[in-house]
Amino acid sequence: MNAVEKSLSSTSSHSSRESVPTPPSGAPAEGRPLDAWLLSKLSAFLGDPSLEFAIRDGARVSPAGTAAARVTFANRATLMAVLTDPAMRFGDAYADGSVTLEGDLVGMLEAVYRAGATTGKPGSFLRRALRRPRANTLAGSRDNIHRHYDIGNQFYSLWLGRTMGYTCAYYPTPQATLDEAQVAKMDHVCRKLRLKPGETVVEAGCGWGTFALHMARNYGVRVRAFNISREQVMYAREHAQREGLAGQVEYVEDDYRNIAGRYDAFVSIGMLEHVGVDNYPDMGGVAHRALGGRGRGLIHTIGRNHPALLQPWIEKRIFPGACPPALSEMMSIFEPWDFSVLDVENLRLHYALTLRQWTENFEAASGKVRDLFDARFVRMWRLYLAGSTAAFTTGKLQLFQVLFSPGQNNDIPWNRADVYAR
Amino acid sequence: MNAVEKSLSSTSSHSSRESVPTPPSGAPAEGRPLDAWLLSKLSAFLGDPSLEFAIRDGARVSPAGTAAARVTFANRATLMAVLTDPAMRFGDAYADGSVTLEGDLVGMLEAVYRAGATTGKPGSFLRRALRRPRANTLAGSRDNIHRHYDIGNQFYSLWLGRTMGYTCAYYPTPQATLDEAQVAKMDHVCRKLRLKPGETVVEAGCGWGTFALHMARNYGVRVRAFNISREQVMYAREHAQREGLAGQVEYVEDDYRNIAGRYDAFVSIGMLEHVGVDNYPDMGGVAHRALGGRGRGLIHTIGRNHPALLQPWIEKRIFPGACPPALSEMMSIFEPWDFSVLDVENLRLHYALTLRQWTENFEAASGKVRDLFDARFVRMWRLYLAGSTAAFTTGKLQLFQVLFSPGQNNDIPWNRADVYAR
Repeated sequence: MNAVEKSLSSTSSHSSRESVPTPPSGAPAEGRPLDAWLLSKLSAFLGDPSLEFAIRDGARVSPAGTAAARVTFANRATLMAVLTDPAMRFGDAYADGSVTLEGDLVGMLEAVYRAGATTGKPGSFLRRALRRPRANTLAGSRDNIHRHYDIGNQFYSLWLGRTMGYTCAYYPTPQATLDEAQVAKMDHVCRKLRLKPGETVVEAGCGWGTFALHMARNYGVRVRAFNISREQVMYAREHAQREGLAGQVEYVEDDYRNIAGRYDAFVSIGMLEHVGVDNYPDMGGVAHRALGGRGRGLIHTIGRNHPALLQPWIEKRIFPGACPPALSEMMSIFEPWDFSVLDVENLRLHYALTLRQWTENFEAASGKVRDLFDARFVRMWRLYLAGSTAAFTTGKLQLFQVLFSPGQNNDIPWNRADVYAR
Repeated sequence: MNAVEKSLSSTSSHSSRESVPTPPSGAPAEGRPLDAWLLSKLSAFLGDPSLEFAIRDGARVSPAGTAAARVTFANRATLMAVLTDPAMRFGDAYADGSVTLEGDLVGMLEAVYRAGATTGKPGSFLRRALRRPRANTLAGSRDNIHRHYDIGNQFYSLWLGRTMGYTCAYYPTPQATLDEAQVAKMDHVCRKLRLKPGETVVEAGCGWGTFALHMARNYGVRVRAFNISREQVMYAREHAQREGLAGQVEYVEDDYRNIAGRYDAFVSIGMLEHVGVDNYPDMGGVAHRALGGRGRGLIHTIGRNHPALLQPWIEKRIFPGACPPALSEMMSIFEPWDFSVLDVENLRLHYALTLRQWTENFEAASGKVRDLFDARFVRMWRLYLAGSTAAFTTGKLQLFQVLFSPGQNNDIPWNRADVYAR
């Protein structure tokens, strides 16, 4: 396990590039007691993580032990703004550049998540009670998806690697490359689904279409793949044409709720996060109709150990409408339709590693990203990638693959040894 | 899959031994229209399974197609009694001998379960609303467990095989013997738990203690095993002495709720069925305390595709207080304590095969069982074993193995390949 731990905890060289000047000894002293008090309040609110908090050229508070990183606010106004709503305003201030960081960004967020796990802040209950993710109606989903996935195929191609897989990879060993692990993930899913030549597959949410092509090319199946992101569907169709697989793979620019027809397998990788818990029974109904009492299904999704909403800054600024479910919530996909859950696998640490490798690619291309967008966008996405990494390393997020089958279907795998047979 | 299907659907030669005379042509005709009407009502209530229903020397109703079996009531009074509450009274009438069967008992029950899956009888809703399993308080559990497990080690040793494993076995192939599959199950659980020499394990509900000995002998761990069945604990202690493992395995005659101390692994095989859904968060708390933020746990249990109570005759006559959970219900063990579910495996068809092999042993020893108890007891247990088999072949029951770990523990298996490595 040492190699794993090491590869997960290796300090990223990119996130410490912002250096904060040491406060000069001649800074005005009169505001400092108030600032220090405010900084200590923030630290206490966060459960006193092992971080140093400071105002630029001003007050600072240090933790009891060694600080994992130093967080510096440009001025008291920024600190006050963050204090009113840390979960939301910290991200905005970081994106603006009015909060900077010395040390490892992932390490800093891990410290916050770990400290937060031991405090039950009443604010979070109120937030959960008042907050609802953006609705995922047919029109709402189209808008939500457009806002994330249609910001440019060129942008995503800078850091997702050759497969354009924008979901958790599967690392046979922690030493595998990102591309190797994305291909291994596709094979892992196909093997779990026991795809056989000549079978038909429907894919709900197909991203840039690589998995549909992979299934058609390597497992001899016919695929209908649904997606409401126009940019992704256009990319996928061109790719299928280029590969000579357009006769075997059909990309449909439509909502998963409009899936029609019967298939041997139903598969959905990284779409459930955008479905919304209220829509789970309906999504189960779509799979039930598509399989018609036989066949197999697999859903691959980010999840949680217990029900909770997505971190609010990420939900608002990066993934509108998204919500990773707890397994208890996921069961409302399967239980109303008498689906049998055959196999659940949790690949949490694989997602942490995937994110590490995306971050490396992203930072290597950050100059190009700045040219495509601006410096604020780079900081936003740096924070999003680091926050997601920290969420997986600290167990705030999980990655579930759930294999299922209609309840009366006895044509199911005898055990899982075949998935691991060489 | 053919071998699997074949071994699951092979007709048992034992269950057709009760032969029903063909009704003589000279039977009184006046009561027949009413009897035939009552028989057709029963058939309709059951969703018109492909079965023939008859009164001895009297009326009979046949299904549209070929009948899988013929069910014969001794007289109208028996039929009327069954009609008032089929789920409960059928079992009692079968045990009394006032209902007999021509054909395969498992096949008959499969036909009833399959037909019932398509009918949503209002009676079952009312039953669910009014019925509660016998309470599993500390005293209630002791009484419930005593009523099933303390009826005699000699009786169980007649049909459970060499391992005395009274839970689902794991068949590497469907051709494995019962004993091979029980040993494979123990190894499968140990490999999932990644037991290492020198580690400590606590077992909640240890049956006749074989698994605790297996872990100690083959994986070099120290085990504390809890059980409230006195007969089983006495048997287990003698066995440990005989095997020279009494220093490594301690059997504690106490409730799982009284587990104290810290362990590297928490394991419970076939006890959750007796815990009661209301007690799941507390059971999670026991595991949480036992693991203290590290280690692994595994719960092996009969389950369901959706929440439902146990078949009432089995709950009343065989397993007082038992209730197999849906996965959504099981999550209330894990989610309140921030446990991560790492792996869920459904071994439904393995339990059907286990029950087939128990039934063969049971029927081969039925003369001895009759001598130990009486003919009524033999028929009760024959029905219980056949009903359970049919429940697993038709998907009314599932078998879940759930591997879990404290949420912040990163010392977890990288993937599952090691479980299947030779």
